[in-house]
Amino acid sequence: MSEKSKNKYKEKIGKSPGTLLYTGEGSTKETVITLISYNQEKIVSSTCNKLEQLLPMLKPGYTNWIDIDKIQEVPLVEQIGKHYGLDGLVLEDILNVDQLPKLDDHHNYIFFTLKMLSLEKTGQIRQEHVSFVLGNDYLLSFQEKPGDVFNSIRKRIENQYGRHRRKGTDYLLYSLIDVVVDHYFIIVEHLGDRLAELEFKVSGKSDQRLVHSITELKREFIYLRKVLIPLREAIRKLSISENDLIKEENTKYFDDVLDHVNQVIQDLEAQRELLGSVMDLYNSSLTQRMNNVMKTLTVITTVFIPLTFIVGIYGMNFKHMPELEWHYGYPVTLGVMFVIGLCMFIWMKRREWL
Amino acid sequence: MSEKSKNKYKEKIGKSPGTLLYTGEGSTKETVITLISYNQEKIVSSTCNKLEQLLPMLKPGYTNWIDIDKIQEVPLVEQIGKHYGLDGLVLEDILNVDQLPKLDDHHNYIFFTLKMLSLEKTGQIRQEHVSFVLGNDYLLSFQEKPGDVFNSIRKRIENQYGRHRRKGTDYLLYSLIDVVVDHYFIIVEHLGDRLAELEFKVSGKSDQRLVHSITELKREFIYLRKVLIPLREAIRKLSISENDLIKEENTKYFDDVLDHVNQVIQDLEAQRELLGSVMDLYNSSLTQRMNNVMKTLTVITTVFIPLTFIVGIYGMNFKHMPELEWHYGYPVTLGVMFVIGLCMFIWMKRREWL
Amino acid sequence: MSEKSKNKYKEKIGKSPGTLLYTGEGSTKETVITLISYNQEKIVSSTCNKLEQLLPMLKPGYTNWIDIDKIQEVPLVEQIGKHYGLDGLVLEDILNVDQLPKLDDHHNYIFFTLKMLSLEKTGQIRQEHVSFVLGNDYLLSFQEKPGDVFNSIRKRIENQYGRHRRKGTDYLLYSLIDVVVDHYFIIVEHLGDRLAELEFKVSGKSDQRLVHSITELKREFIYLRKVLIPLREAIRKLSISENDLIKEENTKYFDDVLDHVNQVIQDLEAQRELLGSVMDLYNSSLTQRMNNVMKTLTVITTVFIPLTFIVGIYGMNFKHMPELEWHYGYPVTLGVMFVIGLCMFIWMKRREWL
Amino acid sequence: MSEKSKNKYKEKIGKSPGTLLYTGEGSTKETVITLISYNQEKIVSSTCNKLEQLLPMLKPGYTNWIDIDKIQEVPLVEQIGKHYGLDGLVLEDILNVDQLPKLDDHHNYIFFTLKMLSLEKTGQIRQEHVSFVLGNDYLLSFQEKPGDVFNSIRKRIENQYGRHRRKGTDYLLYSLIDVVVDHYFIIVEHLGDRLAELEFKVSGKSDQRLVHSITELKREFIYLRKVLIPLREAIRKLSISENDLIKEENTKYFDDVLDHVNQVIQDLEAQRELLGSVMDLYNSSLTQRMNNVMKTLTVITTVFIPLTFIVGIYGMNFKHMPELEWHYGYPVTLGVMFVIGLCMFIWMKRREWL
Amino acid sequence: MSEKSKNKYKEKIGKSPGTLLYTGEGSTKETVITLISYNQEKIVSSTCNKLEQLLPMLKPGYTNWIDIDKIQEVPLVEQIGKHYGLDGLVLEDILNVDQLPKLDDHHNYIFFTLKMLSLEKTGQIRQEHVSFVLGNDYLLSFQEKPGDVFNSIRKRIENQYGRHRRKGTDYLLYSLIDVVVDHYFIIVEHLGDRLAELEFKVSGKSDQRLVHSITELKREFIYLRKVLIPLREAIRKLSISENDLIKEENTKYFDDVLDHVNQVIQDLEAQRELLGSVMDLYNSSLTQRMNNVMKTLTVITTVFIPLTFIVGIYGMNFKHMPELEWHYGYPVTLGVMFVIGLCMFIWMKRREWL
Repeated sequence: MSEKSKNKYKEKIGKSPGTLLYTGEGSTKETVITLISYNQEKIVSSTCNKLEQLLPMLKPGYTNWIDIDKIQEVPLVEQIGKHYGLDGLVLEDILNVDQLPKLDDHHNYIFFTLKMLSLEKTGQIRQEHVSFVLGNDYLLSFQEKPGDVFNSIRKRIENQYGRHRRKGTDYLLYSLIDVVVDHYFIIVEHLGDRLAELEFKVSGKSDQRLVHSITELKREFIYLRKVLIPLREAIRKLSISENDLIKEENTKYFDDVLDHVNQVIQDLEAQRELLGSVMDLYNSSLTQRMNNVMKTLTVITTVFIPLTFIVGIYGMNFKHMPELEWHYGYPVTLGVMFVIGLCMFIWMKRREWL
Repeated sequence: MSEKSKNKYKEKIGKSPGTLLYTGEGSTKETVITLISYNQEKIVSSTCNKLEQLLPMLKPGYTNWIDIDKIQEVPLVEQIGKHYGLDGLVLEDILNVDQLPKLDDHHNYIFFTLKMLSLEKTGQIRQEHVSFVLGNDYLLSFQEKPGDVFNSIRKRIENQYGRHRRKGTDYLLYSLIDVVVDHYFIIVEHLGDRLAELEFKVSGKSDQRLVHSITELKREFIYLRKVLIPLREAIRKLSISENDLIKEENTKYFDDVLDHVNQVIQDLEAQRELLGSVMDLYNSSLTQRMNNVMKTLTVITTVFIPLTFIVGIYGMNFKHMPELEWHYGYPVTLGVMFVIGLCMFIWMKRREWL
Repeated sequence: MSEKSKNKYKEKIGKSPGTLLYTGEGSTKETVITLISYNQEKIVSSTCNKLEQLLPMLKPGYTNWIDIDKIQEVPLVEQIGKHYGLDGLVLEDILNVDQLPKLDDHHNYIFFTLKMLSLEKTGQIRQEHVSFVLGNDYLLSFQEKPGDVFNSIRKRIENQYGRHRRKGTDYLLYSLIDVVVDHYFIIVEHLGDRLAELEFKVSGKSDQRLVHSITELKREFIYLRKVLIPLREAIRKLSISENDLIKEENTKYFDDVLDHVNQVIQDLEAQRELLGSVMDLYNSSLTQRMNNVMKTLTVITTVFIPLTFIVGIYGMNFKHMPELEWHYGYPVTLGVMFVIGLCMFIWMKRREWL
Repeated sequence: MSEKSKNKYKEKIGKSPGTLLYTGEGSTKETVITLISYNQEKIVSSTCNKLEQLLPMLKPGYTNWIDIDKIQEVPLVEQIGKHYGLDGLVLEDILNVDQLPKLDDHHNYIFFTLKMLSLEKTGQIRQEHVSFVLGNDYLLSFQEKPGDVFNSIRKRIENQYGRHRRKGTDYLLYSLIDVVVDHYFIIVEHLGDRLAELEFKVSGKSDQRLVHSITELKREFIYLRKVLIPLREAIRKLSISENDLIKEENTKYFDDVLDHVNQVIQDLEAQRELLGSVMDLYNSSLTQRMNNVMKTLTVITTVFIPLTFIVGIYGMNFKHMPELEWHYGYPVTLGVMFVIGLCMFIWMKRREWL
Repeated sequence: MSEKSKNKYKEKIGKSPGTLLYTGEGSTKETVITLISYNQEKIVSSTCNKLEQLLPMLKPGYTNWIDIDKIQEVPLVEQIGKHYGLDGLVLEDILNVDQLPKLDDHHNYIFFTLKMLSLEKTGQIRQEHVSFVLGNDYLLSFQEKPGDVFNSIRKRIENQYGRHRRKGTDYLLYSLIDVVVDHYFIIVEHLGDRLAELEFKVSGKSDQRLVHSITELKREFIYLRKVLIPLREAIRKLSISENDLIKEENTKYFDDVLDHVNQVIQDLEAQRELLGSVMDLYNSSLTQRMNNVMKTLTVITTVFIPLTFIVGIYGMNFKHMPELEWHYGYPVTLGVMFVIGLCMFIWMKRREWL
């Protein structure tokens, strides 16, 4: 999940600070630009591959949501950047999939980037770099991988559900961020399930693979926190933003998302702390198990070693050993050994070793 | 206690941000709305199930406390929200039982939510999502589960005990929060008792179930802190609020509750730290126990293995072993072995292994 | 020391927030009110049991120090509260022995509460709830248990030592707090001594009781910190107070006490950290001890088990064992075994197991 | 990497606070001063060894980048300081290779120092003390060791790539800092690789050298953080600087570098936390391994010690032992022992010891 | 180093808050007062024992540095305090050797106290309580023990090195603090050396004394931090002081010292963290060693116990044991045992136990 292709940074070093470079993995599918233009009465949606096709379709005065589905096509991103007058540093951040969440306020547009996390069917966490540019009558959304996470929003706009059609681009931005944050709850819940499962397994048996599972879970907690802490900061900036692009009546929505992110973070921290307990549980279970093994060894040894000594005595070949001549020497010896063994057994029983 | 029904979040994701959805467990009992209207002279209390029945009973100029007993009935909550002009996000927070404590100031009303914790007879902690809406002449209280936690307040109002009848809705809000916070002391005290019990048990015997008890206690500490930290923040906001709904003469009461919450938090933190010691205690008790087992094993082995070697020597079948022919060979050998065993014993006594 | 009587909180819950309730342990002695009235020229001191006796003795214009020796007598505290116009919440805090240190500024009087800690002859720490109310020409001091901690101040006032007689109630308050804080140094020093003793013992022998001592010490550190952190905050508020009851020329004294409290806290934190080391020391000493036991076991086993095998060989009853017939078979075998044992011994000596 | 030559500080103590002293290791190469003067149209670059040679080549109105390649030559640094009116404390910081990153704003020039980290081919981290002085039309850069880290910038300026030629000294400073920060990403990535490798090795086998590798890695994390935290602070000061030397239009570049530094720090913190897991992994793998050894010992002992006792019984030399006379005594005994051994084996199989 | 004489605090408790009391250890040497008066042209230095001798030698308009060499002579300190109008609380702090670093600004003079740490030849850290009082034309320095730490400053003033003679008392104060802070670097470096040595030793052998060394080092880190944190705060206050006694042009010097203190603190924190690793190293080395011991035990036992069982079988005295009669019974048995032993050996070789 947080794997990086090696030497990625090395490529960049020789280059000028402003050189645009896509840092994610390649993909062979074609980029799709989806445009949805709507106001309270009308809605038009269309799809294309090139900027030249897109431009004539934009409707001034409408809310234009331009969703670019794949950011591997660097020249397209560059053209869009030029058309909307985006700063070179913003374009760099759109293309850099390692960029952590942040908000940049450029007066006439606001740049916002975050990580979309979703759960794949295999239980693995899929990570996607998503960026937004909020303008006066347009919202650009850049997705790393083609996907249908924003489909629910699209449908709601088309079906005139919710407040979308009455509200502008800032409310649209809120909805999109809200969808992403809602997915975090699922991820944290999923990690919580894995944690509970681990806790259950850990006291059942001591398998070294469990420690690996714990480490892996820890790595994902660490990754999530790395992504969530700057996200909180970015959303906080949105909700206190004095930029006119965010209407004052809508800041309450961003406050609400902020509240959700805080809740995710607190759930995460609580789980992280519990993970430490699971490691403790594993370690003490390991020691407990060793204790049991040692006890068995000690019990067997303690009972039989003195008895073996006794039978060794009567195995000696001295000429003059009166006991050997006695008629009941053998059964008496067996009896004595039985009594000794029994005493040992009782003594250990009392010390709760059995 | 902090268990969540799985897949809860998934349901929500497709929906519009403003869709109202109850996130707790169901209940078959009917919702009960209890209205108590009072001023310094008069008091009227009544009960109903529907908003239409309630509305004509409200008395303007009186302090109207409307207690909704179960929030599973989403449409009722929605109607009340509409009637009092509550924001959709507030209604969402009323219905979302995972919402952490918070305060939202909406100028003409204040929304406050917290968790009611109470101790069931089984020793388990019962958690309830409770929300308040403070208006000018009304206080709405939403409880997740029907219960009698606020009965003491109700009685005091009816019996004209305390300052209730002279003071308005803000003092009523304070009383209700105070009751909830008082219950936290009981919970923390109860956890403290369980901790002391664990500490006692842990050095008595090494049972793997104890580690589970420690983990469980830790989980409850983590949960309590998760609930208390935002509660402190919310009450702090109340006590420094500049909203006219909180009269300046009454802020001292909220200061006092804040002080109580701080005290609960400090007790909690102190106990959390002690819990770490209990784990240490358990681990060192485990090692100590292993040490004792090892010592026994070593003592037995160390004494008997050399002696067994000696008797082995005289069990050899060599033709020419002069000792075997000696008349006192056997008793001398026994004597020598006794002396060797004694020396071993003394040596180990000195090293404090016995 | 931090023990609480159970169910204490439960009693309170049904009651009105303003209900006065003494939360400490009972005492059969009678309450004693000691009044010392002084100015630069005159000093009058007297003792009584009731408020009615006290009131005529107060001297306006003098510094009136009214020391109430036991707070179990709730009605007396209530009467005094009424006479001086104290808030109900203040009276509650005076009577609640679990109240942590705090300062409440009520314009015409300042309420200050802290914990008096003293060392009993048995080495145990005695804890007492002490409250002060600072007015214009009076200082009320409420002590939980009768004691002589403030006697030194009383003597100094009577004997015209120090600055007391020239200065007013605020300087008196400072002196009393200073005496209490000076006692904290003794407590921390005493805990430091116990820590040093533990550190010494811990490497001497591994006794499970030592772990209990460590836990106990930790509990007292935790308690002390719980009491000191809010005390620091309360004194800080005093030293920056803009209330005219604290004369500006006297704030430097409160700065000085604040400085002392900071120093106690830092000593405490340093010792707390060292306590962690003592636990480490104990654990590694436990492991070291186990290592030594294991080594002994291994040495004995490693030397004698192969030898026992050899003597076993010549104890076999095969008809055709040529060695048994040899004349020097026995001494040669003994010799070989001696050499083998010696080699083993040397090998283990080299690995530093002996 | 963070090694220091001993007694370095001792030398300094007797000296005046303003005494200039190079604190790094010596080098025999000659200092090289490289001057690049450029504006949007022209560019001149030259190389010399002495200040006298340098001064006539400076071009007023151009951006003059003076790169001093080795700071061992104290008198040269002093002359340059005098010529540009640098404070004695600044010169001290330029020469003190232990100086942590910082920014000093001296109104007419800004002093900035940081650590250049690069990866040598051996995998070791090379550390270099680099300082900048930003003036109105000049930028001094002081490097501890001759190297080619800034060559990429030099080429870009010469080839008129990027924005360099249009922008002034502040943009040049940004580019140089950016190159250094880009190298941090490589370092952190390299440490991450080493961490992953360790994690893999640690569960494979328990080699004490692995613990050393973990400690070494930890030391480098600690060093990196020590260098990065003040660097963040210094860059933050640059980006909010109100000094006219940093043009307002260029602060966004410093914001961008700040963002990168934050990202490096967060990666670092994430890896540091994972390192703790690797140590846990190692420890539990060690215990697990011990468990396995113990199990083997216990299995062998538990099976054979009782059997050896039985054969010992029939090795006794009592006159009257009826079993010895029986015709099938021997095979029956063998059979019984086999059954006992089998039972033991099954019992241990069930307890999952095999 | 941080040892305190017991019961010290008890003595103080009965006393008035303003009672002067020297809290350090006694000394029999006589107090020496050294006066150095200088301005840019002239310098006069003299030595005496009494205040009466000192007063006539003070030169108004000059920078008068009065160095009191031993603070055990309480009456002298009191006289000086009276002469310069120092507050009683300041005198208390001068005499209290446990006083942590702090700065008190009394308008017409500034009081500054810190700890002088130096390394004795035995490797022990010598601690000294040093206080300064900065007035308009005088600087008082109070040293606990006679020593030569300030000699280097004295020489520089006399020899007109550095900026001393041109600058006033504030620069002198800076120089003296700078000397003290420079010594901290030596201490931290020395502790770093001891840490490195420990790290080396710890993996060599497991000696319980090493744990003591680690604890001792930890104690010194804790002490250093306790002294450095308030020192940083005190110097920070100096550097932002608005008192005219600190000329604005000289604040940069205090900034520089502040920077040094920060660097010492960061070095210290880095080393403290490494110390934790050393403890980890020790513990895992202990476990590793135990593992090795266990392996040896297991190897020996596993090889010989089955073989001993076999020889036991043929030591039984059954009448009918056909193998005993066989001609090659003995060598075959030996051969079989050799093969079994070999298999065991190979099996354990594979599991890497040898």
